[in-house]
Amino acid sequence: MRITALAGGVGGARFLRGLLHHLGTVPGQHEVTVVGNTADDITLHGLRVCPDLDTVMYTLGRGIHEGQGWGRADEHFTVAEEFAAYGEGPDWFTLGDRDLATHVVRTRLLGQGLTLSQVTARLAERWGLPGLGVRLLPMTDDRVETHVELSDVSQQGGLRAVHFQEWWVRMHAAVPARRILALGVETASPAPGVLEAIGTADVVLLPPSNPVVSIGTILGVPGVRDALRGTRAPVVGVSPIVGGAPVRGMADACLQAIGVETSAGAVAGLYRDFLAGWLVDTADADLSGGTGPVVRSRPLLMTDVDATAAIAADALRLAGELAAAAVA
Amino acid sequence: MRITALAGGVGGARFLRGLLHHLGTVPGQHEVTVVGNTADDITLHGLRVCPDLDTVMYTLGRGIHEGQGWGRADEHFTVAEEFAAYGEGPDWFTLGDRDLATHVVRTRLLGQGLTLSQVTARLAERWGLPGLGVRLLPMTDDRVETHVELSDVSQQGGLRAVHFQEWWVRMHAAVPARRILALGVETASPAPGVLEAIGTADVVLLPPSNPVVSIGTILGVPGVRDALRGTRAPVVGVSPIVGGAPVRGMADACLQAIGVETSAGAVAGLYRDFLAGWLVDTADADLSGGTGPVVRSRPLLMTDVDATAAIAADALRLAGELAAAAVA
Repeated sequence: MRITALAGGVGGARFLRGLLHHLGTVPGQHEVTVVGNTADDITLHGLRVCPDLDTVMYTLGRGIHEGQGWGRADEHFTVAEEFAAYGEGPDWFTLGDRDLATHVVRTRLLGQGLTLSQVTARLAERWGLPGLGVRLLPMTDDRVETHVELSDVSQQGGLRAVHFQEWWVRMHAAVPARRILALGVETASPAPGVLEAIGTADVVLLPPSNPVVSIGTILGVPGVRDALRGTRAPVVGVSPIVGGAPVRGMADACLQAIGVETSAGAVAGLYRDFLAGWLVDTADADLSGGTGPVVRSRPLLMTDVDATAAIAADALRLAGELAAAAVA
Repeated sequence: MRITALAGGVGGARFLRGLLHHLGTVPGQHEVTVVGNTADDITLHGLRVCPDLDTVMYTLGRGIHEGQGWGRADEHFTVAEEFAAYGEGPDWFTLGDRDLATHVVRTRLLGQGLTLSQVTARLAERWGLPGLGVRLLPMTDDRVETHVELSDVSQQGGLRAVHFQEWWVRMHAAVPARRILALGVETASPAPGVLEAIGTADVVLLPPSNPVVSIGTILGVPGVRDALRGTRAPVVGVSPIVGGAPVRGMADACLQAIGVETSAGAVAGLYRDFLAGWLVDTADADLSGGTGPVVRSRPLLMTDVDATAAIAADALRLAGELAAAAVA
């Protein structure tokens, strides 16, 4: 079975881990292509940081810090101590030593002229992704960066926009956003294999990732949305909103910025042109399918790997039903 | 008193620390300009590593690993562990976490278009060099790299040359060198302030640094040797060779490569066109001045800071005698 999933960071990575747990590890039984968001990439200390790709790698490769869901387990902060001693900011984004090594290797390889796709494939080898039947692709090899236009004005009285990470990490998304801008996305090309992976998949999954700054930016890469509309595979999503609130993270602040209600139904509306199935929490079981996707409900809290595997199994089951109905 | 010193790594740095100890810390009493060798710089993991500049900074700034004489005290190797896990070589040059932070900051600033001089000044602030009355200048802002042509042939039967660090660190200089090449030196320009610091000094000192790959490469930068010949300041050197062997390091392997005997007298011969005074060890007290520099002998082992301060004091005393003699 060929499965293609679009993924952001923590939510996407945990869902994928559950999916793999459900699929088992029989070699060749499945091919999972993950199209990872790169719009929250940031250059820190001259190093290219790809938080979402790394969260997927570390989670699937058993290197993740379980408690926080991102970053490395057994992390140290010696380099960060030195950066502070040099007055080398920013102080709101601290890179751990193990994590930093990934960025140093990535930056070196990019500097040698490799594409982000090629670099990601190299890094993913260390984390054993090929052995798990997983291919991790960045959504694009071009540079796309999410910036946030803030609703307050600066002390100088002007408007201001900050990198998504500054808004998310430093401001905790507490300053309302007027607009979320994916800089560079209009002219970005999908990375090699992205459109093919969507077009030739048996199932396309949307894990419960942020609908605006994760899934949303992937959809913004020219060609991706058309590929989702055109694929014969059923596209099944797992709602990141449970009972009117994000399961994790601050998706509500992002939805508010684009004028969309924080509800499972409203998020499905963002995907209405290609979404065939929508898995929601039992709290949202009253969601009417209407002319929209086929809706199924079940508990969606990814409390552990087993619970998450069961969610993934239900998403695949829904996809199977939709595929069978399409043939019938 | 304006003192200008040319310096390599460990030997130079320790001598400078002794010199400052002797001079005391009365602000404005002295200006010490250190012209640091940059020809053993190497790019590792995409990061610009300047071993000699860093050894001087760390030694004067109390961050040095005392036992080994280079690298940082209280060092950790978490990033290096990760590099190994990624298969990211080389395995013969391990960067510690604290040390690596310096290279990340330097590489970022160079990437922003700052010159190595500007970057070095920024880094040196953190180590308190300005407060010690010390200005650390790289010998050049251009790229110069020492490579070593080996005397054996490769397994393919060809000649081969390796970066100096590979010969020094990986091979422990055990494979004889046919030739030592300072790539890029012919077209390098002295960094801003280097020639002026030599021309306007009251004393120029050559610490007991490697005469080939440290002092030798600095002398190879066009203009530096002429400045030493032309300065009114007495140029006084401290022999790095004691009783026919290097005090530290493998200077003999370097001297052999350029066909020069490992002796205090032969090293003085390398400097004959500008050297006014030569401080040698008591083991070499029989060294005849002849038509060469004025020779003084004393124990030259830099066993601790006090012993080193006494050596530096004697070098300055010799310079004072030479200056007085020149006036008389």
